[in-house]
Amino acid sequence: MIKARVTVTLKNGVLDPQGKAIEGALDALGFSGVGSVRQGKVFDLEIEGADRAKAESDLNAMCEKLLANTVIEDYTVSVT
Amino acid sequence: MIKARVTVTLKNGVLDPQGKAIEGALDALGFSGVGSVRQGKVFDLEIEGADRAKAESDLNAMCEKLLANTVIEDYTVSVT
Repeated sequence: MIKARVTVTLKNGVLDPQGKAIEGALDALGFSGVGSVRQGKVFDLEIEGADRAKAESDLNAMCEKLLANTVIEDYTVSVT
Repeated sequence: MIKARVTVTLKNGVLDPQGKAIEGALDALGFSGVGSVRQGKVFDLEIEGADRAKAESDLNAMCEKLLANTVIEDYTVSVT
């Protein structure tokens, strides 16, 4: 069993209204000095088997096909 | 300027229908051997100033108050 974490974040330059809303809410709560907030997604997956290289290439394929929208998002895969 | 990443994940035992849906979709796309998928959130923040200890305690407070629902979610803060 291989555990992996995939992190999907918006590319630089892509507007993030959700992040902006969080920024505003943090400010309203009294947290000053928060320069920017960007929100992304994280997926924790369990892959059967013990072949880390295959798991990693499968995970990249999963990101390309389903987990990330590569037009506007970047992803990183880390196998632990 | 301090950069920080906050990762918010569902606690163990909390049902994750979104993760289950992704599991089903991955299976339908031909990725067999995916044991479990859990989805979480990630926040990339920029904090003004250079006091890492203060930034870290502020970030923990932000998680408790806004970023995470600590009844069902865990969070980790990493200052880079």
